[in-house]
Amino acid sequence: MFEHFPQRVLVNEVVTRDGFQSEAEFVPTATKIELINALSTQGLNKIEVTSFVSPRAVPNLRDAEEVVTALNRNTDTTYVALVPNERGCGRALALDLDEINLVMSVSETHNLANMRMTCAQSLDQFARISAMTAGSAMRLNGSLATAFGCPFEGLQTEDTVLHYIEAYLEQGLHSITLADTTGMAVPNQVYSLCRAVRARWPDLEVTLHFHNTRGLGLSNVLAALAAGMNQFDASLGGLGGCPFAPGATGNICTEDLVHMLAEMQLDCGVDLAGLLTQSRQLEAIVGHPLPGQINKAGLRTDTRPVPESVTQLRQSLEA
Amino acid sequence: MFEHFPQRVLVNEVVTRDGFQSEAEFVPTATKIELINALSTQGLNKIEVTSFVSPRAVPNLRDAEEVVTALNRNTDTTYVALVPNERGCGRALALDLDEINLVMSVSETHNLANMRMTCAQSLDQFARISAMTAGSAMRLNGSLATAFGCPFEGLQTEDTVLHYIEAYLEQGLHSITLADTTGMAVPNQVYSLCRAVRARWPDLEVTLHFHNTRGLGLSNVLAALAAGMNQFDASLGGLGGCPFAPGATGNICTEDLVHMLAEMQLDCGVDLAGLLTQSRQLEAIVGHPLPGQINKAGLRTDTRPVPESVTQLRQSLEA
Repeated sequence: MFEHFPQRVLVNEVVTRDGFQSEAEFVPTATKIELINALSTQGLNKIEVTSFVSPRAVPNLRDAEEVVTALNRNTDTTYVALVPNERGCGRALALDLDEINLVMSVSETHNLANMRMTCAQSLDQFARISAMTAGSAMRLNGSLATAFGCPFEGLQTEDTVLHYIEAYLEQGLHSITLADTTGMAVPNQVYSLCRAVRARWPDLEVTLHFHNTRGLGLSNVLAALAAGMNQFDASLGGLGGCPFAPGATGNICTEDLVHMLAEMQLDCGVDLAGLLTQSRQLEAIVGHPLPGQINKAGLRTDTRPVPESVTQLRQSLEA
Repeated sequence: MFEHFPQRVLVNEVVTRDGFQSEAEFVPTATKIELINALSTQGLNKIEVTSFVSPRAVPNLRDAEEVVTALNRNTDTTYVALVPNERGCGRALALDLDEINLVMSVSETHNLANMRMTCAQSLDQFARISAMTAGSAMRLNGSLATAFGCPFEGLQTEDTVLHYIEAYLEQGLHSITLADTTGMAVPNQVYSLCRAVRARWPDLEVTLHFHNTRGLGLSNVLAALAAGMNQFDASLGGLGGCPFAPGATGNICTEDLVHMLAEMQLDCGVDLAGLLTQSRQLEAIVGHPLPGQINKAGLRTDTRPVPESVTQLRQSLEA
């Protein structure tokens, strides 16, 4: 099972976008900047810093320009922003970001609910955004939301997902993300879809974006790794909810993912100790517990002192 | 990766032993009996109903005899009790149980801390218990605690684990459980140890007992399945703590496990709807939230009604 695992795994951090967007309390701009600057020194591949959405739709990200402008850029990290439309693309282009992330749900019903557009309208918009960015250095990533199932329509077929990847690439997008938006994926489904994608596009940059809604986030990472995938989104502390599953956790937790990878001797280049420091600070920032588990349980290699009672028992046995 | 998965998976429920033993409030005897009787109709392979320990050591299980005597036995379910010593074995033998579960930590330090004995003393005791049960129908299962790591000593070698399995079998034990007592296992380690055990004892009944302390419980199940293992302990709602990892979750959650297996088309014969009913009642019994996620998020196949806004948008687009 582990024979085909990639030697090098890339971890993308989404906490300041996917995590903060659903927080009720506004996170101060200076706090966001400080967190992103700290995260950018931890060896993460990409950081999705914010979203250029309407401030009415997502009040917590209303300071997108201020945040992006003030960052200390690390040239080893790709800085990404989510962009829902051409207006958002214009804002991103003005700010010298590395990449924009476009989103469409492969489920027509979910796309209507989430983006207020049909899939055809979304694709038309991708084409216009692609034209807007032509000649710039801006990379375009396209996320396929509900790729592993839609809370309204149920499971989506592999053919549907492959069809829309093809359509994304035709619109000029450079890389894709398969997103399990409401945590419906199970490992054999992940393995099968990832293998189908790899068979058709062996060199395409593909990211997997899992939610831990039903406890399967890291199991799905394992299945994707076994299928040869090597890039994953994750959120510090596991922050990030899902409006369709109240009480359930959101994104997979970055430090839990990095701990698993490190302990399986898979290199992702991320500084776990640094992440854990950030995660503790994040808990203070949002003012509520985070679903991540390593920040509660510690690393598996954190051994504890031998209890005094054991030392005494040993001495009495040896006497 | 999924080619070698077993077609039939067995699920053992441990909530009334491993779950209740660490609850601060006493769970009334009648409530325990009712829960075990309900669980015994759900298709579970084994139920570890209680432990014949000292009432001072584990006050919540001080009613072991009363519970076992009052059960409505289902002949399709194996009823198990944990037994720490010969005195416990005598109590179990008096009560017509199907199986007793003996425990020793493969880590000498952990065995001294937990059982107040050296490993050699534990094995001697296993031999005496084996002699006590000779001629009865009682099956003997032996659990190897800290098989994937000890919080005091760190990781244990595969050779150590294999050595103690051999020793267990020499003492007359019929089956073994590899227990990840404090949630230290990672998937490639699980796979490797399971393959080594299977290579040496192809027909031995082996159960895997994982804790979700570091978020890897179901990932470790996946790795064990890939190595050909087919029997797992789990606890309703994920109830059960670990004294060495405060704040972290305990056993893997039965309904989360069954949901994963069912959605991967692996047959475990367990009624998920029934389990979820029991899980909701368990939350009321213990009076605090349970770590399991399916009882919060619902099944992945639970689709939601299409929002009215989508219906209206569709109509306006078609007009």
